[in-house]
Amino acid sequence: MNVGFIGLGIMGSRMAANLQKAGHELVVYNRTPEKAEALVAQGATLASSPQEVGKACRVVFTMLATPEAVEEAALGQHGFLKELPGNSLWIDASTVNPSFSQRMATIAHKMGHRFLDAPVSGSLVPAETGQLVFLVGGEAKDVEEVRPLLDTMGKAVLHIGPHGQGASMKMVNNMLFGQIMAAFAEALRLGTSLGISEEMLCQTLLNGPGGAPFLKLKENKLLTRDFSPEFPLEWMHKDLHLAGVTAYEQGVALPTLHTVKEIFAQAKQAGLAQEDFSAVYQFVNPK
Amino acid sequence: MNVGFIGLGIMGSRMAANLQKAGHELVVYNRTPEKAEALVAQGATLASSPQEVGKACRVVFTMLATPEAVEEAALGQHGFLKELPGNSLWIDASTVNPSFSQRMATIAHKMGHRFLDAPVSGSLVPAETGQLVFLVGGEAKDVEEVRPLLDTMGKAVLHIGPHGQGASMKMVNNMLFGQIMAAFAEALRLGTSLGISEEMLCQTLLNGPGGAPFLKLKENKLLTRDFSPEFPLEWMHKDLHLAGVTAYEQGVALPTLHTVKEIFAQAKQAGLAQEDFSAVYQFVNPK
Amino acid sequence: MNVGFIGLGIMGSRMAANLQKAGHELVVYNRTPEKAEALVAQGATLASSPQEVGKACRVVFTMLATPEAVEEAALGQHGFLKELPGNSLWIDASTVNPSFSQRMATIAHKMGHRFLDAPVSGSLVPAETGQLVFLVGGEAKDVEEVRPLLDTMGKAVLHIGPHGQGASMKMVNNMLFGQIMAAFAEALRLGTSLGISEEMLCQTLLNGPGGAPFLKLKENKLLTRDFSPEFPLEWMHKDLHLAGVTAYEQGVALPTLHTVKEIFAQAKQAGLAQEDFSAVYQFVNPK
Amino acid sequence: MNVGFIGLGIMGSRMAANLQKAGHELVVYNRTPEKAEALVAQGATLASSPQEVGKACRVVFTMLATPEAVEEAALGQHGFLKELPGNSLWIDASTVNPSFSQRMATIAHKMGHRFLDAPVSGSLVPAETGQLVFLVGGEAKDVEEVRPLLDTMGKAVLHIGPHGQGASMKMVNNMLFGQIMAAFAEALRLGTSLGISEEMLCQTLLNGPGGAPFLKLKENKLLTRDFSPEFPLEWMHKDLHLAGVTAYEQGVALPTLHTVKEIFAQAKQAGLAQEDFSAVYQFVNPK
Repeated sequence: MNVGFIGLGIMGSRMAANLQKAGHELVVYNRTPEKAEALVAQGATLASSPQEVGKACRVVFTMLATPEAVEEAALGQHGFLKELPGNSLWIDASTVNPSFSQRMATIAHKMGHRFLDAPVSGSLVPAETGQLVFLVGGEAKDVEEVRPLLDTMGKAVLHIGPHGQGASMKMVNNMLFGQIMAAFAEALRLGTSLGISEEMLCQTLLNGPGGAPFLKLKENKLLTRDFSPEFPLEWMHKDLHLAGVTAYEQGVALPTLHTVKEIFAQAKQAGLAQEDFSAVYQFVNPK
Repeated sequence: MNVGFIGLGIMGSRMAANLQKAGHELVVYNRTPEKAEALVAQGATLASSPQEVGKACRVVFTMLATPEAVEEAALGQHGFLKELPGNSLWIDASTVNPSFSQRMATIAHKMGHRFLDAPVSGSLVPAETGQLVFLVGGEAKDVEEVRPLLDTMGKAVLHIGPHGQGASMKMVNNMLFGQIMAAFAEALRLGTSLGISEEMLCQTLLNGPGGAPFLKLKENKLLTRDFSPEFPLEWMHKDLHLAGVTAYEQGVALPTLHTVKEIFAQAKQAGLAQEDFSAVYQFVNPK
Repeated sequence: MNVGFIGLGIMGSRMAANLQKAGHELVVYNRTPEKAEALVAQGATLASSPQEVGKACRVVFTMLATPEAVEEAALGQHGFLKELPGNSLWIDASTVNPSFSQRMATIAHKMGHRFLDAPVSGSLVPAETGQLVFLVGGEAKDVEEVRPLLDTMGKAVLHIGPHGQGASMKMVNNMLFGQIMAAFAEALRLGTSLGISEEMLCQTLLNGPGGAPFLKLKENKLLTRDFSPEFPLEWMHKDLHLAGVTAYEQGVALPTLHTVKEIFAQAKQAGLAQEDFSAVYQFVNPK
Repeated sequence: MNVGFIGLGIMGSRMAANLQKAGHELVVYNRTPEKAEALVAQGATLASSPQEVGKACRVVFTMLATPEAVEEAALGQHGFLKELPGNSLWIDASTVNPSFSQRMATIAHKMGHRFLDAPVSGSLVPAETGQLVFLVGGEAKDVEEVRPLLDTMGKAVLHIGPHGQGASMKMVNNMLFGQIMAAFAEALRLGTSLGISEEMLCQTLLNGPGGAPFLKLKENKLLTRDFSPEFPLEWMHKDLHLAGVTAYEQGVALPTLHTVKEIFAQAKQAGLAQEDFSAVYQFVNPK
């Protein structure tokens, strides 16, 4: 059975490679086809459009940067959705807002297909090593059907709930990361102002009860001030903004989120948009 | 050698018991002497004043609620400091502000004694089981001298730096906890507003990269809404206030800290002062 | 010359009445036609749809609650825009976001018409007494052409700049009001906590250099705690949200705005959505 | 009758000059005596210490920068309070915290004297032109006794309430200014990002219902970006900090205040401490 994969960026290329290693026949598409070369060299078929992917597969993954890109790939002039055979399965692993996922689910269903929103927790390294966590929204039986594929790319597949809840959980997850990152930056700032070294602070705090696992992965960036991006600061800012807009829509007050969002906005203004989101530390504690 | 222990509250009574179990002869004092009964039954001597403790010991621990209480015990009319034999060692395990610790160190030195600020990370259960972490400020040789005693009460003794840096690290540590707690409360709030259950949110987030270890200890409180205090919300608020005042003194801007501090202030106004500090969730997500 | 007026709510009905008093022949439309009765009794023609308005006029005002309502009236199935004779003039006095105004301007131009965004500063009483201030975006010559009509409804017509800048200025204006209102509420809160009466605080602060004119209009509401709505709190919250989203789009960090927005969100959660926006005081200082 | 005046800085020198112009015999003291020259040239007596002032007067004004300076002048080794004849009147016009004023009142009373806290609203220009507003805490009869003196320096004398309430009102007043200043800075920031000129924004907003009178006095500073200090930013930051500490003591949550306080802290970090407090605009909207 052919598996379609659309979107071969930092994450998608590594995820597709793990699918391929597990023996799946891939039909891939990327706007800049050069990124498909390694996969094609290993036997993948390169499609000239999303439409071509749709003609060749019953299961299609999308892993794209924005809702607009997803919508174009699925529903645009050369979109894949209208080409799929009946009752196909579309898994969108992109990070998008919950209401977008729900809308895609509705459209797919009307066209006779099935949909899962399945964004991932984890960035470059887990994508490469097949250690991602999938946060999935949709029907339980569809999750089970696709689980063997997801297992080739990740270490866990969590079925959160109905359509949109995978996207919701991803949004909540990233919001938590952004807030903890800012909190840790401020903790280091106060500590260093009192004469404690960054090394001592990291060692003590990260091995203590407040040491969230992802913070440990950022320790080296903070200590060396080398903020080469794993997850760019402007993307985190976008996710915090998305959470803020969703909170407004849901009638929910989230003061800490909004304060943290504006710290990231300030960090962007200060020129750190393209750095890793841990570079918020550089803004909070310049050196 | 006698070891003095002043302050037998929730924490102090359990810490002293561990010292005693390890075979040390204790001379203890508490304002309400009833709290000393269990220790006395096991052989501790009950002093009628801090002064009496000072006459009988060369090493004295204090574990009290406020800087004012520490100052009274050490330097008040019936204080212990003036009674100690020359070159004695005073270890203050209370949570106080760094400048207070530095002042106590200076006074103790002028009177011919040595001082360590050694607040602890960990609350009731680690105090009982000897699993505390000591964050110590002072001279390295004094830390080494007292390490065997600290080891009976804790699992780790971290020498952070000179006088006041134990207190500084404790303040930074608690500030990080307060901020992460508020962030987690807001994450659950947004998630539940989108229809995901608290159980699913806790399970996913706490086992993910944002799952700070202390949050897992609070999971049951959040899910049952039973906020019986381990560390009362008003104490957390006080620690956040202390961090805010210190930030002002150090000329450091900490926007997230201040926003979180005011959420705790609102939670206090809403009647949650005596609950566990995780009850900030009850304020953020009332039910 | 007939003047069209669509939207006869709290504001629109009073504005139209002032146009009528100045001798203009009105063709009016409102979803619930009862609200047009007083105007019809004075000679206005009641249209059965926006379309009917378009057929009878070369100048049309819209004063509606949301961008969606404006779009429906102008461009919906029974919209007026397609019926207008060439080179007509549409003045939208509704409070909408700048990008919406720009889009309407573009559409109107493509259809051969002219457009002004002309939201008003001032609420019920100024609408009634013709004391509104129009904040206008669009071509200078169009502003001059319509100025005699605007003068019947307002005391000032400010040409802010090109299309969308009337809406922009209105958004900035309301954002300033919301922030000052919250600041004043907090000032009263601190003052009363120190034992000063609300009367003394209002008298001193409102007659001092911080006494923004609109605050004086709210004094009686604060002192009597009668928050009957002039401008509902949920509308202010919506405007603050709109400003926050616009700030994100413009790449601008506005920390105070976002904190104030969340206080209004909390006030909404506390049941004050339908009250006047000055009821944020009730949330900040409950009694 | 001699009138004592201690503290001849920017404010005090101008206030004393107005007392002198009204015909009062002054006995003045300043740490740097050069600042007294103009007053001495017009007939004032220069004292060599606060003590000398106390020996020569029954009414003493203090106008100093900090509580510590006030305490030193009144109660220090060469303080004036112990020298005053019985039932003298001390008016402290300095900006200090309410609890300090209350403590001074208590001490003065125990020594047989009367005390008023009488900080002023208004800065350099009103001090020079006798247009200050006195916010007075203390006994009504004492206020009446000193009113003729205050009237020479100000345009209004407001008796707010008992001891400390003058200081309280001043704190609340400055807190309101700081918050409105930050709000206005953010409003201009959003407006300019949307293409509206600073001039148009100032003209529209300052003449509208949100135009707090003191903002108009700052307009020129904002438009020229010449932030020569009338009231330095670091003093405003100090006053906001003081309000925050007082809010904590009073058990009151003030989220906006704390967010604004941290914006001023950031502005200080950015090197604007010595500029006028309106320079917060330079931080919010750098150019």
